[in-house]
Amino acid sequence: MTSDPADLGLIRAEVATALKRFLRRQRDVLATIGDDLLPWVEVISELLSGGKRFRPAFCYWGWRAAGGQTCPEIFTAAAALELLQASALVHDDVMDASDVRRGRPAVHRQFAAMHEAAGFAGSAEAFGAGAGILVGDALLSWTDELYHASGLPADVLQRGQPMLNAMRTEVAAGQYLDLLNQFSGNETVQSAMRMVTYKTAKYTIERPLHLGAALAGGALAGEPPHSVAAVAATFTDYGLPLGVAFQLRDDILGVFGDPARTGKSVTGDISEGKRTVLIALARERASAHQLGVLDQHLGDRQLTAGGAAEVRGVIAETGALAECENLISASVKEAIAALDGAPITDAARSALIELAVLTSSRAD
Amino acid sequence: MTSDPADLGLIRAEVATALKRFLRRQRDVLATIGDDLLPWVEVISELLSGGKRFRPAFCYWGWRAAGGQTCPEIFTAAAALELLQASALVHDDVMDASDVRRGRPAVHRQFAAMHEAAGFAGSAEAFGAGAGILVGDALLSWTDELYHASGLPADVLQRGQPMLNAMRTEVAAGQYLDLLNQFSGNETVQSAMRMVTYKTAKYTIERPLHLGAALAGGALAGEPPHSVAAVAATFTDYGLPLGVAFQLRDDILGVFGDPARTGKSVTGDISEGKRTVLIALARERASAHQLGVLDQHLGDRQLTAGGAAEVRGVIAETGALAECENLISASVKEAIAALDGAPITDAARSALIELAVLTSSRAD
Repeated sequence: MTSDPADLGLIRAEVATALKRFLRRQRDVLATIGDDLLPWVEVISELLSGGKRFRPAFCYWGWRAAGGQTCPEIFTAAAALELLQASALVHDDVMDASDVRRGRPAVHRQFAAMHEAAGFAGSAEAFGAGAGILVGDALLSWTDELYHASGLPADVLQRGQPMLNAMRTEVAAGQYLDLLNQFSGNETVQSAMRMVTYKTAKYTIERPLHLGAALAGGALAGEPPHSVAAVAATFTDYGLPLGVAFQLRDDILGVFGDPARTGKSVTGDISEGKRTVLIALARERASAHQLGVLDQHLGDRQLTAGGAAEVRGVIAETGALAECENLISASVKEAIAALDGAPITDAARSALIELAVLTSSRAD
Repeated sequence: MTSDPADLGLIRAEVATALKRFLRRQRDVLATIGDDLLPWVEVISELLSGGKRFRPAFCYWGWRAAGGQTCPEIFTAAAALELLQASALVHDDVMDASDVRRGRPAVHRQFAAMHEAAGFAGSAEAFGAGAGILVGDALLSWTDELYHASGLPADVLQRGQPMLNAMRTEVAAGQYLDLLNQFSGNETVQSAMRMVTYKTAKYTIERPLHLGAALAGGALAGEPPHSVAAVAATFTDYGLPLGVAFQLRDDILGVFGDPARTGKSVTGDISEGKRTVLIALARERASAHQLGVLDQHLGDRQLTAGGAAEVRGVIAETGALAECENLISASVKEAIAALDGAPITDAARSALIELAVLTSSRAD
């Protein structure tokens, strides 16, 4: 690997700058409406300072893969995806009543705390949830706003629009499938996998790549014409398996990860009863006794450290953990193979291989 | 008035057509993800079939006022505002835990009922709220999607973008101010009025007019150039007072309206404890005894018809109702006066006068 694999350091710095600049403008807009809105800026600014910026990175490399040149505008357009993701996180935390996000209290919890500190009337929880819904709405609107303020020409932005559209519909739909699984008690590996396709594989990897490539469009001046359709197909073949690897790594980190590094609660995924592929694999392989342990602890909001350890034991003993690691390796291999001889630039091919390794082997 | 005042019949028909066409496309997108998503289409389609289409009407007349010609594209762009409004309604109903919207169960209630009918596990309310948040998110994303798919050229759409941006941020911010008032117990006329400015006046009237005018931009070929700034100023002078009139009429209908016509619950605004200008005026003028009646019933989820009648009595006896009607008349007059000699087309001037009367005197 190079000293800055896949230019991730550069991308992160540029995305952070674009987000800060955008937030400064939004601060002025909100201040005009009223000082009461300024807590939004603080909460959002903190939330946006976290994040691994993988979606902007894939968008950037989609652009570069299709012949786009590095320029400030593409980083700004890519940064818009961080606003979309922040919106999804804030709303997700409201829906799951999660306490922690990126190592800090979830946004709705921060507003609930503000309610308590101010001695407001009524339910602090309802106030927090309401504020969370509205902050998430603003972030969702701002996705589009930052995208269109990126400085890329209007006709270029219009080329990318269908990809941005698909991303947004797919992530809301994917979250709904998640909700359905959770409440309908559907715990099969198959249903967990379908959710992974929409909530992660398409949303985190395939669509950001498609967006970047669509924006680059006919930018391949002076090179043999790479059909847009062929580039898009490459990104599907690369993005879908890599998305599975990415999510399965997330599943493992959510149960076995170091909270100091993941920024999540140590028992979060277990006590929230998340229907992950990892858990579905464990269920599939569990004995009656092991199934009893899972049923006892998964979704238990009062979960103890001991209960969490029992669940971890079952996941390891059933072989689900090893199976998950095998699936990750095979998926990464499949993703990288899709790049072989693909009609993309050499720089992008190298970077996408590095990104495949980085996203699937991360510890946070 | 003409047989179709302000072309409202035409606008409604065109907007309904554009929304139906768009929903058919979204149905295909959702069906590709999974049949589980099809209930969304039904729920959204019903929700969108209601509504008085005032926002698209103001957008259309902003366009016409600045010299734009009637064409299918402007109706489609204007129809996008109905998606934004539908999103705001769905999220608002989740936040307020409202039961009824446009004469039918609120969206989150429909999903809660689906949960019960299917015998899902967990809380039907939590499932309904989650689904409501996600459906609202999709509608918010679709606002932008329909706007950009209107068929107007990319550079024209870019001219309108800042107005669409302002609208979306202002409506989320306005809702938050509403939430703050509600929980902080701020019941002054002044704070209720500030909320009216952002939640209604700018969002329902001024910004849609600005959007239409910005889209028309330099479209005044062959006429003396009307400065965009002068047109925008006219719409501010017209829109802000008319927005107050519109909201005050809404306040009155929410307490004294005929539920069969408003599509709202008969005791809704009272039992939800909405901090309206009407209520703030009543508080300002109430005796200690009358204040006691208001405090007893406002926000009482178990409100009886008798309790609601007592509140109506206080609002009338304090003179708050009459004062509200006076404010409406004065505001409409002020709005119409702003059109005098304004740099807009004659057709638009007539239509905006008709719209001022229609929006402030409606019974539903």
